[in-house]
Amino acid sequence: MTRPRISEFTVRRLSVYLRLLRELEAGGQEVVSSQELADLTGTSSAQVRKDLSHFGSFGKRGQGYTVSALTASLEEILGVGRRWNVALVGAGRIGTALLGYRDMARRGFHIAAAFDTDPEKIGTTVQGVEVVSMDRLAAVVAEEQLEIGIIATPPEAAQEAADRLAEAGVRGILNFAPVRLETDGDLAVRSMDVALELEALSFALTPDRSPRREAG
Amino acid sequence: MTRPRISEFTVRRLSVYLRLLRELEAGGQEVVSSQELADLTGTSSAQVRKDLSHFGSFGKRGQGYTVSALTASLEEILGVGRRWNVALVGAGRIGTALLGYRDMARRGFHIAAAFDTDPEKIGTTVQGVEVVSMDRLAAVVAEEQLEIGIIATPPEAAQEAADRLAEAGVRGILNFAPVRLETDGDLAVRSMDVALELEALSFALTPDRSPRREAG
Repeated sequence: MTRPRISEFTVRRLSVYLRLLRELEAGGQEVVSSQELADLTGTSSAQVRKDLSHFGSFGKRGQGYTVSALTASLEEILGVGRRWNVALVGAGRIGTALLGYRDMARRGFHIAAAFDTDPEKIGTTVQGVEVVSMDRLAAVVAEEQLEIGIIATPPEAAQEAADRLAEAGVRGILNFAPVRLETDGDLAVRSMDVALELEALSFALTPDRSPRREAG
Repeated sequence: MTRPRISEFTVRRLSVYLRLLRELEAGGQEVVSSQELADLTGTSSAQVRKDLSHFGSFGKRGQGYTVSALTASLEEILGVGRRWNVALVGAGRIGTALLGYRDMARRGFHIAAAFDTDPEKIGTTVQGVEVVSMDRLAAVVAEEQLEIGIIATPPEAAQEAADRLAEAGVRGILNFAPVRLETDGDLAVRSMDVALELEALSFALTPDRSPRREAG
């Protein structure tokens, strides 16, 4: 099947639409217009229609979308109408915050195992999940069919964590360590980097960016 | 001065170049080519040249960029050659992780105060920062000249946190709560949402997205 080339921004908007649709569904709303979806997610109705058009034809002209059907379609498109088992590498502060993050499990991402190299952490239980030695990573990933790895290690340990997750057969990585990972093309990698987001804010708050010349 | 319209992706790449340049500088490297910058950050040399061209002329044809000068230019462009004082709202798990995140301070973003509504947290010290009552937000933001707010509250408290940060005079917000904030146009807002990133991974790992029709 042809796989449409979809931008990162489109995927992000689909996620935002899905979150909103679930809220509307929970509130008992049955139909939603592209204008309403646009208003509630901060985009335009043309953008909503364009984003959805990549994946087929939804709704009827002038009648809007059926909330439950569009929810189900977006879940299928995003691949979230299922359970994803997740390996967390690094049970430090960020890892602990993630283990306590209820919204993740609610959206289908279950941290099934947490790995660390610190003997003081191994064997303890954080937010109901046992911390296991990194030595057991490959075995546990295979056993529990973990498909996504989250890296929440110190920066200097992140690349090795990525290599070992990839070797163990994980297909996607969400990286919280502030380093760029070298991975081969088969692995999907997303990064969450607080410093980069703060720099984007800083850029937005800094008015003077007139062209200038560099000396060297 | 004219303010070029720069995409979110360009800004992100500038941050990545800057991180790399700082590493090269620390390692004693004096000159870097656009090809080397591209290879080390996972993009193309044409992209590097295009990204930098928005902001003027850098380097000399065939001689590459002077690492120290390009570092200084990118710091100025991104507005990070200075200290940003940050207000953290929410001293729970995510807030605590952020307070312990050394890379943030190293990159110029200093959490000067942490706010919470929980009487058990108010008055305690987390990672060397005192947790202060939300009642004192406006006063502390003014006193300490806090310009950026980070929201790390539960989702249901995030909008009020945003409103109060905006009223207090903060100019930018980084939001970790999984909700879309309603803010007025003057406020720069960036969001970090684990569930959205995981859904983007899930999308990348889900092959079948052939066009289909929705019933309703």
